[in-house]
Amino acid sequence: MPIYQAPIRDYQFILSELLNIYQYQELAGFEEVDPELVDAILQGVADFTTDIMLPLNSVGDHQGCKLVDGKVITPDGFKDAYKQYVENGWATLTCDPEYGGQGLPEVVGTFATEMKTATNMAFAMYPGLTHGAYSAIHVHGSDALKQKYLSKLVSGEWTGTMNLTESHAGTDLALLRTKAKPLGDDTFAISGEKIFISSGDHDLAENIIHLVLARLPDAPEGVKGISLFAVPKFLVNIDGSLGEANTLAATGLEHKMGIHGNSTCVMLFDNAVGELVGAPHQGLRAMFTMMNQARLGVGIQGLGVSDIAYQNALVYAKDRIQGRALSGVKQAEKAADSILVHGDVRRMLLSQKSFNEGTRALMGQQALWLDQAEREADPVKAKQASALAALFTPIVKGFVTDQGFKACVDAQQVYGGHGYINEWGMEQFVRDIRIAMIYEGTNGVQALDLVGRKLLADKGATLQVWSEMVKQFIGQHSANEQMQPFIAGLMDAAGDLERATGYIAKHAATNPDIVGAASMAYMQLFGISALAWMWARIAATSLAALEKGTDEVSFYQAKLKTGTFYMSYWVSQTRSLRKQIETSSEYIVAFEESDF
Amino acid sequence: MPIYQAPIRDYQFILSELLNIYQYQELAGFEEVDPELVDAILQGVADFTTDIMLPLNSVGDHQGCKLVDGKVITPDGFKDAYKQYVENGWATLTCDPEYGGQGLPEVVGTFATEMKTATNMAFAMYPGLTHGAYSAIHVHGSDALKQKYLSKLVSGEWTGTMNLTESHAGTDLALLRTKAKPLGDDTFAISGEKIFISSGDHDLAENIIHLVLARLPDAPEGVKGISLFAVPKFLVNIDGSLGEANTLAATGLEHKMGIHGNSTCVMLFDNAVGELVGAPHQGLRAMFTMMNQARLGVGIQGLGVSDIAYQNALVYAKDRIQGRALSGVKQAEKAADSILVHGDVRRMLLSQKSFNEGTRALMGQQALWLDQAEREADPVKAKQASALAALFTPIVKGFVTDQGFKACVDAQQVYGGHGYINEWGMEQFVRDIRIAMIYEGTNGVQALDLVGRKLLADKGATLQVWSEMVKQFIGQHSANEQMQPFIAGLMDAAGDLERATGYIAKHAATNPDIVGAASMAYMQLFGISALAWMWARIAATSLAALEKGTDEVSFYQAKLKTGTFYMSYWVSQTRSLRKQIETSSEYIVAFEESDF
Repeated sequence: MPIYQAPIRDYQFILSELLNIYQYQELAGFEEVDPELVDAILQGVADFTTDIMLPLNSVGDHQGCKLVDGKVITPDGFKDAYKQYVENGWATLTCDPEYGGQGLPEVVGTFATEMKTATNMAFAMYPGLTHGAYSAIHVHGSDALKQKYLSKLVSGEWTGTMNLTESHAGTDLALLRTKAKPLGDDTFAISGEKIFISSGDHDLAENIIHLVLARLPDAPEGVKGISLFAVPKFLVNIDGSLGEANTLAATGLEHKMGIHGNSTCVMLFDNAVGELVGAPHQGLRAMFTMMNQARLGVGIQGLGVSDIAYQNALVYAKDRIQGRALSGVKQAEKAADSILVHGDVRRMLLSQKSFNEGTRALMGQQALWLDQAEREADPVKAKQASALAALFTPIVKGFVTDQGFKACVDAQQVYGGHGYINEWGMEQFVRDIRIAMIYEGTNGVQALDLVGRKLLADKGATLQVWSEMVKQFIGQHSANEQMQPFIAGLMDAAGDLERATGYIAKHAATNPDIVGAASMAYMQLFGISALAWMWARIAATSLAALEKGTDEVSFYQAKLKTGTFYMSYWVSQTRSLRKQIETSSEYIVAFEESDF
Repeated sequence: MPIYQAPIRDYQFILSELLNIYQYQELAGFEEVDPELVDAILQGVADFTTDIMLPLNSVGDHQGCKLVDGKVITPDGFKDAYKQYVENGWATLTCDPEYGGQGLPEVVGTFATEMKTATNMAFAMYPGLTHGAYSAIHVHGSDALKQKYLSKLVSGEWTGTMNLTESHAGTDLALLRTKAKPLGDDTFAISGEKIFISSGDHDLAENIIHLVLARLPDAPEGVKGISLFAVPKFLVNIDGSLGEANTLAATGLEHKMGIHGNSTCVMLFDNAVGELVGAPHQGLRAMFTMMNQARLGVGIQGLGVSDIAYQNALVYAKDRIQGRALSGVKQAEKAADSILVHGDVRRMLLSQKSFNEGTRALMGQQALWLDQAEREADPVKAKQASALAALFTPIVKGFVTDQGFKACVDAQQVYGGHGYINEWGMEQFVRDIRIAMIYEGTNGVQALDLVGRKLLADKGATLQVWSEMVKQFIGQHSANEQMQPFIAGLMDAAGDLERATGYIAKHAATNPDIVGAASMAYMQLFGISALAWMWARIAATSLAALEKGTDEVSFYQAKLKTGTFYMSYWVSQTRSLRKQIETSSEYIVAFEESDF
């Protein structure tokens, strides 16, 4: 069975040193946050995920969920584990104290989520979706709705879902047909079929609150006619007790490549009673406000699963003896050397390690921006943080899950034939994480979002803000000789990104299809540049720690070496991505349908 | 259910025009080969694979194989399909006529294999492994052994397996422990456990001939002490009839990520009676002589599955309507445009298409070299063809399966959420083809084989032969203006390959570990360059056809457009691969084990 070592030391490094989140005491929720509290929480989650969730990961994969008499039964052990999860309060971390939450910053919650998805992605999705439903109601719901649902969603006693997709309407929600008929008493009768509903039904909680996109009778066509409704599995009485069953049901379970432990349901709403969340016809806007957070959550899956896959591949590479180093015998006492002596095994592991650690730092930065956007008193600061988080959202979701998937495939490759065998656990990681490139907006949609909404829509203003931050960093550190590899790598990546941005801007007006054709390579180029920025900052922080004196010299030196590798191996890709954008985008658009 | 259109027109183009195999009438087996015969065979295989094998592909995935009372039962329909396969003579295509084969060239057989693996990879592995066993006995077996086994293996009435791996000895066969004890009558008692034995047991054929690597009592340590034995499931009487069961059995079936329809067995040999194939202690050499062909077979899997995945993704992209083109509505009569209007969907499909068609041409070239190596009367020509086939073997296996896997992942991505659902068939392609990067030598081993045995061992002599062919081609066509994008792309790739080769050569003597660290990027760079060479040749052939006059103008023009895309999109990657080799290899080696 796969092992897991929660990366607590890395979290401490990011929170205390790299980002120094303890400097934000003036922000709501940060007042009482100190290293001791954060350590206690992260260690508690580490213990729970490693001891309780990890052993259930392969159980969930083997058993999957079952639909029996219209009810979903989760794999053995999930119910007990979820009960403990709720009792321990792990559902409440970042939620509003008014409804029983602990009000902790997102930057802390994000790392808790990483450990959960690393150890059991399918299980972690039950509370993950609940958090989405909580946010939707918290931000957009009426007071009555909040009173009715929030405290139960915060505690985890009830769970939540997001019902967007219909079989003919995935990316294009304008096409959706589910209807909402006013019943005259502030409630609505919801009718329609939704597919791909994660955690749509299960036996973990007493009630499930479905957030459902549907059209009112007077709705304009397209996305401007979509409203959001809260539709409970069981109706809730005024005293908060459960009433009769609503007229909705899971009518099917999808047979998926992975995340078997999570119930992916076909949901049928047959005049089910629901209430509006937010204003009529503003459902898509309500969904969009939660998107940055939801997409960060999916990106975290890419990181978490990539990290546990890496950890296990490293253990295997150290244990497995096979062949001898090309430069001669390294472990004469053994019948063969460990495969960690082989350059290509090291290459794969270093690629994973440098991606994971750089990404973890980026996730911290992104979560901190989300915290600042929500909690900064200064509206200018809040707006800038919000814009930066929006700009980086497609990176955090699209780039990270693409590369996280590849990292899992490489980790599987380290195992040789055993990587293909279920019992070793590696092939499950690959199957599970594959969905992260698809859901919450496919990565192609992320790339379009990056070039369209995030880059061109504000005429590059937010990118400019970030570019200034990068330039400022370079200015501060370019005199430091030890920073040379990092400054050089960062400048190299930033230079290619700038040229690619110019290409995008140039073609946006004349032929936007060309921008679409270039968008994926642009997102990858942006992502590699973003991690180069994080690695340069990690290097500066590590050098400062070494200079100050530390008894963890090897920790900081490993950071510098890993970062140096990143700057050579990963950053070497930016030139080709830029070339690819410049040379192939027009061909892609010009290719005739009949030529395929 | 996935569809399949056998790429017959592309086969004709490659065989008749690009390679013109009909010019080799003086080679054994080519005398009676003409376009009509080849068309008839390919069309026959196309019908059989599409009608019989394809519908069983998902059946095999769902049911898998079962081990009941020590016997493997294959999925429903496999037995009947295999019976037809044998009756139709599809097993005999490239086999020796002396034993009932049709003696056809490998270059024809290779494309038959592509259709088989495309439609049902798991099923195709039963005859695939049989062919390996046939070759081992045909090349290295005694006359008695040939008489005993070959005609039944050729017809497919009996099947074969290759038993190499033990749980502690995968890549490193020096570690293997299976023993062979002489019984004094030219037979041996084989004892040991083998794992990952594809087609190890099944109910498709009366008998299974296991080719087993084992050690004789007087064997030197390491790979120089390994011998090869033929060990039948049922002993064979002098008159060819089946005798008693041998003391061997499948004791377990592996639970795999994919290829569920193929039985991957743990085999236990308990003093099982076997006979030597080839000389004592020369077993590894016997395996090696078949390696080029076996690895071509695995590469073909990468191509075949990538192609069927592409075909289905293209159909889906044309059918699925979702959103509108960035440049405005394209299909006003529909509620949305087909997703083929979106640049990133086109990018994925074009990447797959240009990879598949270039690779198919390369597979033809490789198979032709293997034919020439075996059948050329002139020993100089035969030796050169053999050396070229050996050089390209890691490309054909390693590069093609790596990129073929990525192509399948992209094809799955085109389907959005449906790509993750089993019923649509795409996720099975991804799971099935994943093994091709691992077995028959992991792709890391392929990369080491390329730089070590194929490049450095002959001091680059064979690479030089190929480089001259490339230069000659460039010289012939550089004056042709229409060839400019192809000549430019080919020179670009070849230039990066030359520099990377220089880096490898330079470090080979001082620190071979650095060569290992660079090997994977080098193999990818070599592969992209090899396909650039094929695309340039395809372009020249297509231009010649257009110039000569043809009623298939659109076929040749699509080739030119697809090739132009390849030269921009794929070739843009060579600069970064070269940079990656030059800048990161030393860091990879220098990284301390404790820093991971």
